[in-house]
Amino acid sequence: MNHHLIESTISSEFVYQGDFLHVKHDKVRLPNGQTSTREHIIHPGAVVIIPLLENGEILLERQYRYPLGQVFIEFPAGKLDPGETVLACGKRELLEETGYTAQEWAYAGKMHLAIAYTNEVIHIYFAKGLTAGERKLDHEEFLDVFSAEPSQILAWSKDGSITDAKTLTCALWLQNYLSGSWPLDWVTNS
Amino acid sequence: MNHHLIESTISSEFVYQGDFLHVKHDKVRLPNGQTSTREHIIHPGAVVIIPLLENGEILLERQYRYPLGQVFIEFPAGKLDPGETVLACGKRELLEETGYTAQEWAYAGKMHLAIAYTNEVIHIYFAKGLTAGERKLDHEEFLDVFSAEPSQILAWSKDGSITDAKTLTCALWLQNYLSGSWPLDWVTNS
Repeated sequence: MNHHLIESTISSEFVYQGDFLHVKHDKVRLPNGQTSTREHIIHPGAVVIIPLLENGEILLERQYRYPLGQVFIEFPAGKLDPGETVLACGKRELLEETGYTAQEWAYAGKMHLAIAYTNEVIHIYFAKGLTAGERKLDHEEFLDVFSAEPSQILAWSKDGSITDAKTLTCALWLQNYLSGSWPLDWVTNS
Repeated sequence: MNHHLIESTISSEFVYQGDFLHVKHDKVRLPNGQTSTREHIIHPGAVVIIPLLENGEILLERQYRYPLGQVFIEFPAGKLDPGETVLACGKRELLEETGYTAQEWAYAGKMHLAIAYTNEVIHIYFAKGLTAGERKLDHEEFLDVFSAEPSQILAWSKDGSITDAKTLTCALWLQNYLSGSWPLDWVTNS
């Protein structure tokens, strides 16, 4: 039923292979039979974590994002390592960036970040039963960890204090999980 | 108060200038004084529209997204043309992609799409007082227009039928606007 929408690959080549960004330039056949080009980024995928503290607050980060030249309020997140499972990535990133470990995890869903030009997917996990510890930041990573009430996170989402799309998507999950509309299946660490 | 987070530019150069993607590779100074590199995409910015039909349904699109090889459910959206205002872009994209014009517009807020590697910002508008007309798709653009109840959009956001981050962020706005929690200032077309 989607034949009138689908584009097919004629040829594909890497035009830039950087330390982080891997850019492809493809020749494609459009649904009407004509040809065009598509430029897109190959990304390993990532995980974002919504950490629920015992006191009802949510763990967040403040991090400088160079492409925009400003500090953003974000949920903890990071890229998948080669061969790493999504849950293992979530546990590793939460520990590295915040120092916290979690007793229970629940998979919420996934989002695609910039569907016009990257294949990046971000898997969304909730974490609870949190215990604080030492964080292990990458030597090139600088970020603050703090916590806030869910109502504060929603107020910040409305007033423009939070504009990161992955964090706003997590705010949608947080609001509907806490209201009881979107229940989760929790799994306890073995 | 953010000095311990901020990175500064030492040098910056374009490493790939494609038809659409413009990639920069920068040398930066980290907060601890060491140097590193940052790769990032320069993007013109975009507008997404949440169009409210008179019957309570919301206008949506189905579009094939080449980087992910699948059809996505999305709100109408598009990139800013050079010198174009955000509202003019919203009106143009709504008309081009769906054929609809709107009598009233309300600016909701903005989101940043992939803050690790692009400066893309998407401005969010609500539109109402909609009138159907002829759409004017770009000759390389193929998409279906349809409408759905807000409750259906939220169900799709939960069950994974909607995974586009800009559309999920709009679902957060839609839910809170319709509940009365996040009121908007409507402006009538002059």
